[in-house]
Amino acid sequence: MKIKSIGGEFGLICRIKNKVKLYSKDVIAGVGDDAAILKHGKNHYLLFKTGMLVENVHFSLKYSTSKQIGMKAIEKNVSDIAAMGGLPKYTVVSLGLPKNIEIDVIDGVIDGINKKCRQYRINSVGGDISSSKEIMISVAMLGFVEKKYLALRSGAKADDLIFCSGDTGSSGVGLELLKQNVKGKSIKKHLEPQSRLDLARKLVKIGINSMIDVSDGVASEIRHICNESKVGAVIYADKIPISQNTIQDAKKLSKNPLDFALYGGEDFELIFTANKNKLKQLKKHDVKVIGEIVDKKDGVKLVNDGRKLKSGFEHFN
Amino acid sequence: MKIKSIGGEFGLICRIKNKVKLYSKDVIAGVGDDAAILKHGKNHYLLFKTGMLVENVHFSLKYSTSKQIGMKAIEKNVSDIAAMGGLPKYTVVSLGLPKNIEIDVIDGVIDGINKKCRQYRINSVGGDISSSKEIMISVAMLGFVEKKYLALRSGAKADDLIFCSGDTGSSGVGLELLKQNVKGKSIKKHLEPQSRLDLARKLVKIGINSMIDVSDGVASEIRHICNESKVGAVIYADKIPISQNTIQDAKKLSKNPLDFALYGGEDFELIFTANKNKLKQLKKHDVKVIGEIVDKKDGVKLVNDGRKLKSGFEHFN
Repeated sequence: MKIKSIGGEFGLICRIKNKVKLYSKDVIAGVGDDAAILKHGKNHYLLFKTGMLVENVHFSLKYSTSKQIGMKAIEKNVSDIAAMGGLPKYTVVSLGLPKNIEIDVIDGVIDGINKKCRQYRINSVGGDISSSKEIMISVAMLGFVEKKYLALRSGAKADDLIFCSGDTGSSGVGLELLKQNVKGKSIKKHLEPQSRLDLARKLVKIGINSMIDVSDGVASEIRHICNESKVGAVIYADKIPISQNTIQDAKKLSKNPLDFALYGGEDFELIFTANKNKLKQLKKHDVKVIGEIVDKKDGVKLVNDGRKLKSGFEHFN
Repeated sequence: MKIKSIGGEFGLICRIKNKVKLYSKDVIAGVGDDAAILKHGKNHYLLFKTGMLVENVHFSLKYSTSKQIGMKAIEKNVSDIAAMGGLPKYTVVSLGLPKNIEIDVIDGVIDGINKKCRQYRINSVGGDISSSKEIMISVAMLGFVEKKYLALRSGAKADDLIFCSGDTGSSGVGLELLKQNVKGKSIKKHLEPQSRLDLARKLVKIGINSMIDVSDGVASEIRHICNESKVGAVIYADKIPISQNTIQDAKKLSKNPLDFALYGGEDFELIFTANKNKLKQLKKHDVKVIGEIVDKKDGVKLVNDGRKLKSGFEHFN
């Protein structure tokens, strides 16, 4: 029996989740959220997270510099810590490296990791190295969040507004340009995605009900919030922020830019929900309302667009 | 320029270590020790660690069951936390899986991870999954140690006795048997190595000066202690504990069992040093004196054997 026959990546995650047992009451949330939430003193939680990049799955040296790969490996994990309202503090990195790799390539990866660690003041405190057929970078990250600022996928409430922190679809269209060997401004968005750590900290201080970062497309992220919060959602297709560059680049590919926003990869923007009474404060931070939370029985609907919602990106397709 | 030309794996680790910067005074030890040591409240340190297994580098499904691989991935990290005197508490696991892998194999890996987590009461709190050409398991582990019980490689003092917790060389000879398709009792020691967590906790409570686990052979580990402690060592070749099984299995391969003990792979026994006045207490735990610490100027010497010491196992040779 193969991975596909148990429902692909998400089926596999469910299977693993069901097998895991916990041995401590200090685990507030484990497998399944952006990061694990662990008790840590009186006022804080520890956030513990791992995320991996594999050559020819998540990146290719045909498109990326090795520095960009190192940067993305850190950014991906920072984005998840940010989505929970926390601040990253420590990281350990496992590197799988082909035997004949050039030292320049390794130096690039390390420089990229260090650049991002410097930007976010993350302490790189350990690692492991092995030979492997493909380049593989597995980052584990530890962060901290004040209990009062913790943001979860599961906190959305009916009548909440759904917000998006910025342009989506650019990373997805950038990847497609690269694959089809077409030039465009979105390519850099794919190669050097930026998490929204600073903004996330501001949002949790204002007071939001749920949050997630866009790693599998807006549609997939809203589905996660709805599933975890046991609510439904109406998404306004025409309100999803998409940049002019993304629209132009999608045009070059004869594709609908909305598809990249809904189903594209790692934009690292934030999707969050908040009570309507927070709208004025939140609007100061250039965030966009893209929908609202409804009762679970009303499901997840995309309006102003005739299409049915599909799921997000899968590594095993 | 390739990895070999900068001194292989150890040269690469030095290169990376030199590039890393820290941004917090909470880092007591970072890249280079068995685990990072991080400030954590008044009486404890946090221990943070990652270790990876890659198919056909660290294991082969020709020899191992997938359950044994999962077990070893956890045990390897537990052994490092143990070597610092700590207790593991949380783990996150990144899995790289070939697209056509059988679900049974994945289930085996997960069962192995869960078995070891149950044994040590480690909470498996997250992970990441990707497709990859080879099976890859990257484990990150968080543990805790009371400040007073922290054991380091760097604490050895001249005149300390050097101890070994149990039989060495069995994992190395087991691997060689597998490679040469010869049967022997050491094979299980290679496939299911056991860390010495319980013993390590007893040792730090008695009071030792330095400790390390045997992952690259006794010689390599003593060299690490000497380098980090700025001391030398005399190792009594004839005192290094080697089981009858290891001796018999080495004979089948026409090899000297001492070579496996000195330079073999992951036995996960403990090498530690302590003041002579602790000898009586330590001896109760069935540990063996295998040498003593001397001044740095006297170097690291193996006595009762005419050979010069070589270095440990390298993944990039």
